[in-house]
Amino acid sequence: MLVEYHGAPFAGWQRQADQPSVQGAIEAALAKLEPGPHTIAAAGRTDAGVHALAQVAHCDLTKDWDPFRLSEALNFHLKPQPVAIRKVVQVADDWHARFSAVERQYTFRLLMRRAPATHDAGLVWQIQHQLDPDPMREAAQYLLGKHDFTTFRSSICQAASPVKTLDELRIDRVEGWSGPEIRFFLRARSFLHNQVRSFVGTLERVGAGAWAPEDVKTALEACNRAACGPVCPPQGLYLSGVGYPDNPFD
Amino acid sequence: MLVEYHGAPFAGWQRQADQPSVQGAIEAALAKLEPGPHTIAAAGRTDAGVHALAQVAHCDLTKDWDPFRLSEALNFHLKPQPVAIRKVVQVADDWHARFSAVERQYTFRLLMRRAPATHDAGLVWQIQHQLDPDPMREAAQYLLGKHDFTTFRSSICQAASPVKTLDELRIDRVEGWSGPEIRFFLRARSFLHNQVRSFVGTLERVGAGAWAPEDVKTALEACNRAACGPVCPPQGLYLSGVGYPDNPFD
Repeated sequence: MLVEYHGAPFAGWQRQADQPSVQGAIEAALAKLEPGPHTIAAAGRTDAGVHALAQVAHCDLTKDWDPFRLSEALNFHLKPQPVAIRKVVQVADDWHARFSAVERQYTFRLLMRRAPATHDAGLVWQIQHQLDPDPMREAAQYLLGKHDFTTFRSSICQAASPVKTLDELRIDRVEGWSGPEIRFFLRARSFLHNQVRSFVGTLERVGAGAWAPEDVKTALEACNRAACGPVCPPQGLYLSGVGYPDNPFD
Repeated sequence: MLVEYHGAPFAGWQRQADQPSVQGAIEAALAKLEPGPHTIAAAGRTDAGVHALAQVAHCDLTKDWDPFRLSEALNFHLKPQPVAIRKVVQVADDWHARFSAVERQYTFRLLMRRAPATHDAGLVWQIQHQLDPDPMREAAQYLLGKHDFTTFRSSICQAASPVKTLDELRIDRVEGWSGPEIRFFLRARSFLHNQVRSFVGTLERVGAGAWAPEDVKTALEACNRAACGPVCPPQGLYLSGVGYPDNPFD
């Protein structure tokens, strides 16, 4: 299933005993359709407050559901929670939303204006100064490719290795609904915990002129969490796509 | 002052005795800065649930406020309500936000997708079918110019005359954050009550194929409220601009 959600009311994707989660909401909707318990697996376990445009998850069901009717029934039972099943497809028994995935895409929205956002409140990271995207793009070049990303990794990250390959880090300046935005678009096979928010928080310092682009190279090479810039807040972050060798939604 | 707001929590722009209003919220913030009561005037009195990107209002103050500091102080006192003062400028004593205005611009967002909107909930009118913009554009041509718009006017409209001149009605199909949207952009010296929502609700019927474009011409010429299509809901509507002979915000 292709899942969109607003992260604000949830403690994150992952089911938790006594806090609302996106996984828990979908599993509860599934239990209305077939006796549970259900355990669904997702391509990316987003943190509290992080949104998704195109999370991918899978589940095992007994009944041979029509995919469209299943998506409609799930959306009915998910109401009024801000979780929407955009599409459901049937997959092979050995297909796994997480382990079959070969790419994750994240988008980050950073709004630059003084007055508090109204329509986009909770959907962007708002700062009150303007950023210059050119030095940010220069700094982003140092992060591309295969690196030890210890500097940009949360201390509670559970990944086996800090070495990852960043395939794309695009920085666009766009005129958004509420004003000028910097939009970050990142693509990699997988990411470390807090890696995107560590990148964005650090690159913001470059765009503000507080860091030189080369300072990002120095921070990366330090392989030291203490060398990272400030980690930015979650509400501008969107899991915007997951890649598979054969995209099941095509 | 240039004002942005999210319409959902308000009974509309206009102050009411026992319901929250945008006017009431701003007047209460002003009273924190200078003893009241204050009465502010706005270019367009938006209905319950209608948003603004660029409402314009004016007020009279005793103290000689620095415009930027005034906007910051108002935003501070408006929190956490979704009302933002985007800019404040000083104007001549005879300038009036409503009576000096020579143009109002409205934008309407119509989202076309099955799954319920999450990030854009409350910010669009969502329908579950696709619309063809071409016949809608054809129908819109009949509405342009000077007409008796009785068909597209609420029965409680207080305007002296149903004759208005519609200067622009542009219909764009855009790929929005949550999926394909039809965006309507309308421009006129002034509008009748519910005129935009009557237009959009009627044009939606044309885009869906239920009405022919010529049916809109027939409805207009009937000068009869009963000939109007369904009036669409308010949450996709934005007051997006107000025109003045000399734009005070330039």
